[in-house]
Amino acid sequence: MLDKVVINFTPTGMIPTKKMTPHVPVSVSEIIEDVHQATELGITLVHLHARDAQTGEPTHKKEVYGEIIDGIRKYAPELVICVSSSGRNVSELELRADPLNLEGSLKPDLGSLTLSSLNFANSASRNSPKMVQDLATRMKEKGIVPELEAFDNGMVNYSKYLIKKKLIGPPYYFNLLLGNIAGSQANLLHTGMMINDLPENSVWSLAGLGVDQLKMNSLSIAIGGGVRVGLEDNIWFDTKKTQLASNIELLKRIHSLAKANGREIMTPKEFRKIMNLEPGNGKYGRHF
Amino acid sequence: MLDKVVINFTPTGMIPTKKMTPHVPVSVSEIIEDVHQATELGITLVHLHARDAQTGEPTHKKEVYGEIIDGIRKYAPELVICVSSSGRNVSELELRADPLNLEGSLKPDLGSLTLSSLNFANSASRNSPKMVQDLATRMKEKGIVPELEAFDNGMVNYSKYLIKKKLIGPPYYFNLLLGNIAGSQANLLHTGMMINDLPENSVWSLAGLGVDQLKMNSLSIAIGGGVRVGLEDNIWFDTKKTQLASNIELLKRIHSLAKANGREIMTPKEFRKIMNLEPGNGKYGRHF
Repeated sequence: MLDKVVINFTPTGMIPTKKMTPHVPVSVSEIIEDVHQATELGITLVHLHARDAQTGEPTHKKEVYGEIIDGIRKYAPELVICVSSSGRNVSELELRADPLNLEGSLKPDLGSLTLSSLNFANSASRNSPKMVQDLATRMKEKGIVPELEAFDNGMVNYSKYLIKKKLIGPPYYFNLLLGNIAGSQANLLHTGMMINDLPENSVWSLAGLGVDQLKMNSLSIAIGGGVRVGLEDNIWFDTKKTQLASNIELLKRIHSLAKANGREIMTPKEFRKIMNLEPGNGKYGRHF
Repeated sequence: MLDKVVINFTPTGMIPTKKMTPHVPVSVSEIIEDVHQATELGITLVHLHARDAQTGEPTHKKEVYGEIIDGIRKYAPELVICVSSSGRNVSELELRADPLNLEGSLKPDLGSLTLSSLNFANSASRNSPKMVQDLATRMKEKGIVPELEAFDNGMVNYSKYLIKKKLIGPPYYFNLLLGNIAGSQANLLHTGMMINDLPENSVWSLAGLGVDQLKMNSLSIAIGGGVRVGLEDNIWFDTKKTQLASNIELLKRIHSLAKANGREIMTPKEFRKIMNLEPGNGKYGRHF
């Protein structure tokens, strides 16, 4: 439980398209613009997904991630940046790990690490034990902190195996994602179980998929957790799906909730201190 | 909660080899022999995995399943038989569904249906949403009852989606498998959560992987559930792994536990009645 609210901003993701919502940022400049707006309002970290400029499809190319990170850090050098190594459609290690190869001022602070294979509503996400361990090893070698992503009890449990194997080290950062059709549901029992099972020395944020986003964010602010919020997980402002959201509107609501709960937003600098993450000027990363 | 203990006997599985334990039945005649012994002692249903005669590797060929079922039904015509449609190494629908094509007196009563993709300790098991739905549809068309296999909260939740889509119908039979490294753990909270979340009108058995088998079986007998037991999930008789088990020894211990708890073993006939499953003579299956 932390005094301050971690805001993990997820502006883009792999699923939303301009056809689904005009508000989703997909080009490099759109993503940079949304992150700048968010930074001015106040966020802790950003979870980036890059898209191919021609097709709009997800890309793992470090060059595209590099352009986004460069644009962000020009104006927000302290902001904590996480790159995706997600694999809904991609299973090859080198492709998925490509954004982890960025160096110097382009080096990401965190890389996402989904802790098991799972199903989403319409697709399977394959993350074999070997893939999870190889990605964790790569992050450790590079001093990039894993953003541990868990959708169910078993994925939290698997983090403890990675700890035992010394592939990840404390402090840990977790996103707990509730409400996936084949994962733990966005209710108190499932959510409480996952939080209860986290390894010691974990910082965590709650995410809700689709209309569960607001509920999980609000719950987390109430009980001392962080939030993962943005159009990646949910494109609607209201749970009745009558009004498309923009990223900044979603973030402003989080600020309102935090304020009403008497909690401040954690700054990137405070997060870096807690997570033992070095800032800026080619020194990004953690000394393990 | 049922008066009588469902014993779901899993003699072989996909993993154990003769090198790991001489007691695991892998040939057609060995499997038939173990099932006959089990039937004489008293079991409710058997969960079959077939192996290739040459390589000892898992096979989906209906011919091999047919030989096993034929051998079993000669002496145990009432026994409830479940065939695997598991996919650790196989993803093509027609291959996985092949044992469901057996007809007449060789027709299986149940087919296994793993409810999501997941990771085991050393491998990913890919069961995409489409594959799960296609297998469920195939079983429904053929009047074969799905043996619903859940390793975590989300997999129980997915069964409710299949119910809503009318791909599966009541009464439901579940195996809840605890203790997989990337699934719910073999403790009271995780287990209780899964049982609590089951759809109405569900018959369920608890399985524990590896050394968790005895604990989960014994717990289930104590609280009114069924057991999934056999060398598929666990090759050791004791939790310290000093003594390799035989299938019949594992089953005798279940009988002792049931007796000490004042519970009888459910007969295949009683299970058929509860599950609305027609017996024998080419009429195997359920009228949906």
